[in-house]
Amino acid sequence: MTDGLLDVVGIGNALVDVLSHAEEDFLVKEDLVKGSMTLIEADRAESLYGAMGPGVEMSGGSAGNTMAGLASLGSKGGYVGKVRDDQLGRVFAHDLKAMGLEFTTKMEAEDGEPTGRCLILVTPDAERTMNTYLGAATMLTPDDIDEDQIARAKVTYMEGYLWDREGAKEAFRKAARVAHDAGQKVSLSLSDSFCVDRWRDEFLDLAEHQVDILFANEDEIKSLYQVDDFDQALQHVRGHCEVAALTRSEKGAVIVSGDEVHIVDADTAGRVVDTTGAGDLFASGFLHGFTQGMDLHRSGQIGALAAAEIISHFGARPETVLSKLVMES
Amino acid sequence: MTDGLLDVVGIGNALVDVLSHAEEDFLVKEDLVKGSMTLIEADRAESLYGAMGPGVEMSGGSAGNTMAGLASLGSKGGYVGKVRDDQLGRVFAHDLKAMGLEFTTKMEAEDGEPTGRCLILVTPDAERTMNTYLGAATMLTPDDIDEDQIARAKVTYMEGYLWDREGAKEAFRKAARVAHDAGQKVSLSLSDSFCVDRWRDEFLDLAEHQVDILFANEDEIKSLYQVDDFDQALQHVRGHCEVAALTRSEKGAVIVSGDEVHIVDADTAGRVVDTTGAGDLFASGFLHGFTQGMDLHRSGQIGALAAAEIISHFGARPETVLSKLVMES
Repeated sequence: MTDGLLDVVGIGNALVDVLSHAEEDFLVKEDLVKGSMTLIEADRAESLYGAMGPGVEMSGGSAGNTMAGLASLGSKGGYVGKVRDDQLGRVFAHDLKAMGLEFTTKMEAEDGEPTGRCLILVTPDAERTMNTYLGAATMLTPDDIDEDQIARAKVTYMEGYLWDREGAKEAFRKAARVAHDAGQKVSLSLSDSFCVDRWRDEFLDLAEHQVDILFANEDEIKSLYQVDDFDQALQHVRGHCEVAALTRSEKGAVIVSGDEVHIVDADTAGRVVDTTGAGDLFASGFLHGFTQGMDLHRSGQIGALAAAEIISHFGARPETVLSKLVMES
Repeated sequence: MTDGLLDVVGIGNALVDVLSHAEEDFLVKEDLVKGSMTLIEADRAESLYGAMGPGVEMSGGSAGNTMAGLASLGSKGGYVGKVRDDQLGRVFAHDLKAMGLEFTTKMEAEDGEPTGRCLILVTPDAERTMNTYLGAATMLTPDDIDEDQIARAKVTYMEGYLWDREGAKEAFRKAARVAHDAGQKVSLSLSDSFCVDRWRDEFLDLAEHQVDILFANEDEIKSLYQVDDFDQALQHVRGHCEVAALTRSEKGAVIVSGDEVHIVDADTAGRVVDTTGAGDLFASGFLHGFTQGMDLHRSGQIGALAAAEIISHFGARPETVLSKLVMES
């Protein structure tokens, strides 16, 4: 199925996650900053993988996880991102299509860079530390943007992680233009405070001029506006984006839109096993509610529900049919 | 490390598992027998994978799982099995080595059959139904048996699944001969009642003449001796093997050795999420106890403990350090 209206198209770094349990001292030994995402090259990926414990492989990528969450919630969606036509690339493609998502981005040929992967170390405190070898994911260009697909989607969503290579930036700018020309919305997740540090001016420009719905956690939004206080950051962003969904881990989330401010409690009932994908799945839930025409508060609640499911188990793709959880909530 | 004494060397079909949740009606539609293992060819693997939901990939293979369990229990071990030098093959090799296991079997070249995989459908009742595309795993020959490695191991353990191709049978016969010549033990798991049906005479011959420690579940041992009654089967096997460890799911296990019979309760305290690997991990625990010189009853208890851990989560490799569980038990 490659026609009909879509709720969300996600654009991101297409990655296969390699998840492994690790002790704190492993992070120290490997000089890793807990909770962060670090880009690594092929040789470092090789040596770090060699040092890691046994792993579990599953499709990942921030926007990919968000789209998987949306599909599990019953939304219609598409994904844009580059893999190679190799075993892991075929796994990535299968997992999207198996959830009913459109995925038509041309795969890189077998002699190119391999499908990217994210080495994720989960410490006993359930925190995840990510090391990403982008591989084929870096090959995204504006040619990979299907204008018709973008125009069909209520929201075009991009992960901030992608904002690195010029080709990907151009792809996003093109998608944003097409979306707005079609009267649709553009959404961005700031992804990581290191990303924000690196591209602050460009992210500020995006927030002011391109992004209708912004996702950020507390660190990211404070970093974006270079303020120490969450409320100050909130006052800044309300003037820039139509909607901002700001997550604060166990403190829940704040949704702000013009004069409206909604406080959404975190769903803290369950056990926290692995925080990988919490932000991605909050975005799934929020965008699901938003594109179904629910109010901002309810959309935030569905975000919190989806985030709670994902942190209750190992891995960043839902293990439960999220639409059932929503019905029961 | 490729020297020093080993507790167990496992020989098996080297496979990467692709685990996916499935509803009962999917099994019906795909004409699958719940709880069984079916060998499939490449084209069927392709079409079944295409029909399956999103998956999680992790190293598997029955003897591979058993060795991972042994490593997690603190035993020293090695593994023999064939993968191709492809992405999934490298994942398989990494996961064994990351647990400290010896794995020196030569990988097949990139132009051979790809690394084998087992498509595992887990139904809501936690039962697993397996469809195995053997791929490179079929390439095992006696040349892959390192005589020195076998001679260094207290037990050489083989999965019954492997008893199919002539090369693998020859490899096992060679390993058994080397082990016995070195004064070590030979162990076999019957793996699946379909395997027993297919190779009953050869398995009977093995049980009588080659195997010191036999693992079987109730269906398999009854099928081996073509009897309807578990106790009859038990009387047969005590005359053939030095030790037989017979598992009976939630009814626990019976360990029989000559005149000794030990009843071991199943560890039924926890939630059952996915039964994949239950038999494999029972073998881990039993062989760990056995090679550490524990008595048969205690060895069986460790088997039950390891099996209980594996069925409490998705996937057939331990998520917990099993040696800690044993210490706490």
